[in-house]
Amino acid sequence: MQPTPHTGRRAPEERNPDELDIVIVGLGLIGGSLAKALSQNRHRVTGIDQNPEVIQQALLCSAISAEADDGTLSRADLILLCCYPQACIDFVQKKGALLGGALVSDTCGVKGYICPELTKLAREFSFTFVGGHPMAGKEQNGFAASEANLFEGASYLLIPCGAPDGAVALMEHLARSVGAARTIATTPEHHDEMIAFTSQVPHALACAYVMSPLCPEHPGYSAGSYRDVSRVARINETLWSELFLENREPLTREIDTLLGHLTEIRNAVAENDREVLRGLLRRGREIKERLGE
Amino acid sequence: MQPTPHTGRRAPEERNPDELDIVIVGLGLIGGSLAKALSQNRHRVTGIDQNPEVIQQALLCSAISAEADDGTLSRADLILLCCYPQACIDFVQKKGALLGGALVSDTCGVKGYICPELTKLAREFSFTFVGGHPMAGKEQNGFAASEANLFEGASYLLIPCGAPDGAVALMEHLARSVGAARTIATTPEHHDEMIAFTSQVPHALACAYVMSPLCPEHPGYSAGSYRDVSRVARINETLWSELFLENREPLTREIDTLLGHLTEIRNAVAENDREVLRGLLRRGREIKERLGE
Repeated sequence: MQPTPHTGRRAPEERNPDELDIVIVGLGLIGGSLAKALSQNRHRVTGIDQNPEVIQQALLCSAISAEADDGTLSRADLILLCCYPQACIDFVQKKGALLGGALVSDTCGVKGYICPELTKLAREFSFTFVGGHPMAGKEQNGFAASEANLFEGASYLLIPCGAPDGAVALMEHLARSVGAARTIATTPEHHDEMIAFTSQVPHALACAYVMSPLCPEHPGYSAGSYRDVSRVARINETLWSELFLENREPLTREIDTLLGHLTEIRNAVAENDREVLRGLLRRGREIKERLGE
Repeated sequence: MQPTPHTGRRAPEERNPDELDIVIVGLGLIGGSLAKALSQNRHRVTGIDQNPEVIQQALLCSAISAEADDGTLSRADLILLCCYPQACIDFVQKKGALLGGALVSDTCGVKGYICPELTKLAREFSFTFVGGHPMAGKEQNGFAASEANLFEGASYLLIPCGAPDGAVALMEHLARSVGAARTIATTPEHHDEMIAFTSQVPHALACAYVMSPLCPEHPGYSAGSYRDVSRVARINETLWSELFLENREPLTREIDTLLGHLTEIRNAVAENDREVLRGLLRRGREIKERLGE
């Protein structure tokens, strides 16, 4: 298939990285926060959302200067896909003919599925794709919860997927400009196994933990430990079940690793084996102390 | 065995609950913090610690007005045992003859073992025993980490163990006076199953979690979820292995409950069962939202 013709797009060398035409697709917590952060700079930020009320809210608070249409998409320098993984792919399949020459990035929490799909679509429609994952969130969802400083101090993970260095550098620049403390470039595979450990396992754990029949009685008997483990049980189950299933193998592996280690501690307790138990807890402490955080 | 004779002890009705002779046995994080909090009031607070340097530090900052000796013990209104569970029992076995007529309380995190032992010793030596567990802590240990406001807003759990109402009321008063937001009176058995769930399981989990081979690579790939689950891996393994083993059955039961629920989530992921997975995560969310905290 031939590259789709496109009109009105600036060549990469003509783009000032602080004055871009940016379209944000999906103005939820992440998309809304990116819109609020980016529109504080000199970019022209427009947005797309399936909910017209969200568009109105985003316009009212100047998070976007206009709703994006096909014309805006065909002129944009950068398209940020901020919807659920499958919805990102569906959007690009539908609108790909308008994206030739643009830089496209996503914000999905799992990469092994979406990156190959979007890399394939990038070849088909002649746009450039760099995977992205700003490591920020909160317990509330939606545009109403979005805030310009959501990414302050966060890591912004980038998955180059073979894109030119200049495109990756532009994404690094943008990540810094919204407040990210660092960017890390990695592969979809390493991204997904790390996310299984650092984020998905804690979410699975929080849900499993609060299922104890004793949980409703916790008030008065609990302090920081309960609060910390249970916090992220306040989950968006539609989004997270999609993210879990798109990361099936690494997540299953990491849960199995945790089940194994927790069973070791459980058995040392059940068997009253003080030396083994103390050794296991010491090992946990030493790892945590060595990492320092 | 007859009650041991004692001299110089005030009768309970003569005691002003805000002007007590208090001996704190063990000036670590909890004992040191109690000393600092109580000595701000009109009590006379003295202390015992196996480390002479700790006594010097406690004197220097006026957390105690003197080191306690046998004379102090035999006159004290209240003895607060703030050492490891077995050390508390050993201390009372050794010094019980000095305690007749006094109120004795402990601060141990597990009650099913220590409460019957100290109740038996209370009968033998004619003192009154009320079990206590201030639900506060931090990642550092020892007198150096202690602070007067450690108990601010905390729950202070009390195990009456058949003590007279007046003794329990005095402990409630003291708990409030060091900043506790509430006191709850319960049985050793209920205390221990709740603590297994709210405190011991999160500590076991934190240690098991950081044992993942991926843990050392977490910087840059982690945010709040990792931090919250791993926080209490910074554990005092000597104290906690003692606490775990003194709570063997409730803790084993609670870890098994968690292993079971986590395995359900794991299987739904491994089997790619979106409906079951979404249902499990929804269940977690709904429990957490219903509890509100």
